[in-house]
Amino acid sequence: MPPSDARLENPPRSDAERGADLVDLLERAARIARDFVAREHRPVDPADRDPDRLRARLDLELGAAGRDGARVLAELETLLAATPSSSSWRFVNQLFGGREPIATVAEMLAVLPNVSMYTFKAAGAQILVELELVRHMAAKLGLDGAEGAFLPGGSLANLVALLVARDTAEPQARDHGVTPGRFTLYTSEEGHYSLPKNAGILGLGRDAVRGIPVDGAGRMRVAALAVALDRDRAAGRTPLVVNATAGTTVRGAFDPLRPIAELAHAAGAWLHVDGAFGATLALSSAGRALVDGIELADSVSWDPHKMMGVPLQSSLLLVARPGVLAASLDERADYLFQLHGDELNPGHRSLQCGRRNDALKLWAAWRRLGDDGWEARVGRQLELARLAAAKIDADPELELLEPPPSINVCFVARGVASDAVCDRLDHDGRLEIGWGDVAGRRAIRLVCVNPELDGRDLDAILDEVKRAARGLR
Amino acid sequence: MPPSDARLENPPRSDAERGADLVDLLERAARIARDFVAREHRPVDPADRDPDRLRARLDLELGAAGRDGARVLAELETLLAATPSSSSWRFVNQLFGGREPIATVAEMLAVLPNVSMYTFKAAGAQILVELELVRHMAAKLGLDGAEGAFLPGGSLANLVALLVARDTAEPQARDHGVTPGRFTLYTSEEGHYSLPKNAGILGLGRDAVRGIPVDGAGRMRVAALAVALDRDRAAGRTPLVVNATAGTTVRGAFDPLRPIAELAHAAGAWLHVDGAFGATLALSSAGRALVDGIELADSVSWDPHKMMGVPLQSSLLLVARPGVLAASLDERADYLFQLHGDELNPGHRSLQCGRRNDALKLWAAWRRLGDDGWEARVGRQLELARLAAAKIDADPELELLEPPPSINVCFVARGVASDAVCDRLDHDGRLEIGWGDVAGRRAIRLVCVNPELDGRDLDAILDEVKRAARGLR
Repeated sequence: MPPSDARLENPPRSDAERGADLVDLLERAARIARDFVAREHRPVDPADRDPDRLRARLDLELGAAGRDGARVLAELETLLAATPSSSSWRFVNQLFGGREPIATVAEMLAVLPNVSMYTFKAAGAQILVELELVRHMAAKLGLDGAEGAFLPGGSLANLVALLVARDTAEPQARDHGVTPGRFTLYTSEEGHYSLPKNAGILGLGRDAVRGIPVDGAGRMRVAALAVALDRDRAAGRTPLVVNATAGTTVRGAFDPLRPIAELAHAAGAWLHVDGAFGATLALSSAGRALVDGIELADSVSWDPHKMMGVPLQSSLLLVARPGVLAASLDERADYLFQLHGDELNPGHRSLQCGRRNDALKLWAAWRRLGDDGWEARVGRQLELARLAAAKIDADPELELLEPPPSINVCFVARGVASDAVCDRLDHDGRLEIGWGDVAGRRAIRLVCVNPELDGRDLDAILDEVKRAARGLR
Repeated sequence: MPPSDARLENPPRSDAERGADLVDLLERAARIARDFVAREHRPVDPADRDPDRLRARLDLELGAAGRDGARVLAELETLLAATPSSSSWRFVNQLFGGREPIATVAEMLAVLPNVSMYTFKAAGAQILVELELVRHMAAKLGLDGAEGAFLPGGSLANLVALLVARDTAEPQARDHGVTPGRFTLYTSEEGHYSLPKNAGILGLGRDAVRGIPVDGAGRMRVAALAVALDRDRAAGRTPLVVNATAGTTVRGAFDPLRPIAELAHAAGAWLHVDGAFGATLALSSAGRALVDGIELADSVSWDPHKMMGVPLQSSLLLVARPGVLAASLDERADYLFQLHGDELNPGHRSLQCGRRNDALKLWAAWRRLGDDGWEARVGRQLELARLAAAKIDADPELELLEPPPSINVCFVARGVASDAVCDRLDHDGRLEIGWGDVAGRRAIRLVCVNPELDGRDLDAILDEVKRAARGLR
């Protein structure tokens, strides 16, 4: 008889009995989910938009005592009701919004096996799903055969791009550190803040980043890039990375990739395309011209959790030349890599060790929609932006600041500061919308990323803006 | 009349009708979830453990055509059935396993609002939840008032710890890059591979990392650390970080934190405690002694997705001195930070820009269990490990390699190579278990992280091991 310990025995249980607690909670949660979805378009209680009042109302404190599951579920329901829903038509605040229903459900189901995506041994079929996504997405960008890594967000995809560029240019950097002052990096003045942030993290230094001016439509000026590259080379520096942005954060502008690629490669630099927001346009015949030349990139970041409507987060870094990810990221870990070849063990190419499954939801959405469905979905996003722009342009209370370069529509309510309008809308719980600066003017930014919106919703959004503006005038 | 476009109108819809597709899918998914949970303890089909056979069986290909939602749901069900469940008693392969049911459900519910955790404006009440976790968890470690950041995994929590240590020691590093060869780092030879990996990423160089020998029980030798620190200082180098491991990956050993803290601080170095695996022991009176001195750390990594049973991922970095996270990570981003103070906008302290909600599931579990429930849960994990060790020690076919330092039980099946046993068990779909090297011997590593296991499960696990070993002898 092996040793036993009565305290460590459970009552004999069937497999179904083992999971009974979870199944019971799941059934109650299904009702909460249904109610949430039915209510997510309502205005938010203004009291919940005030952190102090919200904190006073909610009981969030953690302490010694536990509570029963039903009570915690009720607390979760209360908490969700006090949380903005990014699928409400009232949420046009960010570069994500709305949901592909099958992706939402796949994300929930992926919580059940709860695998870590470092090895086939631990994650089984989910690894094959991820590899198929990398293969197909690379092909859609004209980067057939690229290797890929799923990362927790576009900023970190951009980080790894700079890292592999650094280690490709200076292979001893990984072991010995980076030569200070050697490298320079280039991005437009309207590119994402993660470029300087990541340069700081990687030991390249934020001062190595050159902000290249943009033209009147928010696109990097190619001539200015050429000047900056020449100046740095003349000063004995090595251009390391040119970061071209496919979809800037505020305006949704696209840097001209093809001429930038030419300049970057002529200067011996790595071309990274930050397509976190806009690489999805490659799936659309209407949008494809905006990413013309993306196939010339050495690496591309692409966030399906933005324009593709899958839940946060799902971000992919594609790297044209296989092998460089492992050259910067692989470490020996016998306890982990025990079976199968490197291809089936993405941990060799990952920034992370343990890594959640961010692939299944995207695969499910892609199976549901197919390339053809993405074409239609992206087309609708672009058309919604054009319609919103037409509505704004026709409205005497509003001023359109520029034709939307893609799906961001930047405008002002005449005679009122844009930030004040956005703050008031938040304060009143009516609309979540942000502001940004466009060619020196502070603009309200309407992001038409949720294809479930329609013309009536756009009218309702603009009505909310105008009502708030009138109250402030 | 504002402009309109008939193609962009949906049929008039109530709020409930807007969500009808999702609600319909959720109902079907509930059945899939129930069936998955009822079957997750079965052996895996050996054909699904072979990547080539699995690939041939599954239709994963992405292409032009879409499919209806019901069909994709059926495909998801097939895929889940071919995925190892980390909540099966047959999964003892990793430092996570099992689930707290309320955390699983909270994780699923968090997908509905799908907020990004950079600002109160975007995430509302969820930010308050996260701040309460940081407050309470810091207090449980004796680090009252520490600031915290949720990160996608322990490796990245360790990365940020090294980053803030680097920028604290050399404040100009963020802008100008790192002085090569200046800094040195220290970790035990059995510490996690993310330490050298992160040193490479941050421009410190992997060569800067000193591997400190361990004693017979897998703990860093304090005297050897002292020698290494002295030698480097004598050579004109600056000890930057001493990384003490609370819970090594293979053996579950705990470096002696208090004497290491003394040495690190006397040398002017930052003390980081990699408690990704073992910081949870601070919640247990039985385990607390193993993390004695953790309150002296400058930073601590802590992965609730390991011993606390919340779904991947939930990782926290706590930093004793507030302000240093923003000093390394904050960037100006007007388009994002529009309301409320810095405390309510964790994006100022985050490695990421967009960031999924990894807090709600942990908060739900903590409300359910309370500190008292964690005490009991961790106690059971420790007792399961002791019982497993007793069973192994009493079994003539098995050899226990050491008393379990915490919840990892390392042993061999007499006369058979441990890796061969593990490979066979995987090949046959009977048990997911890994091997590692313990004091020069290759061991089977049984991680008693799932408190739902009981004595009978331990017997079943050891029976599987012995059956596989007999087949190989």
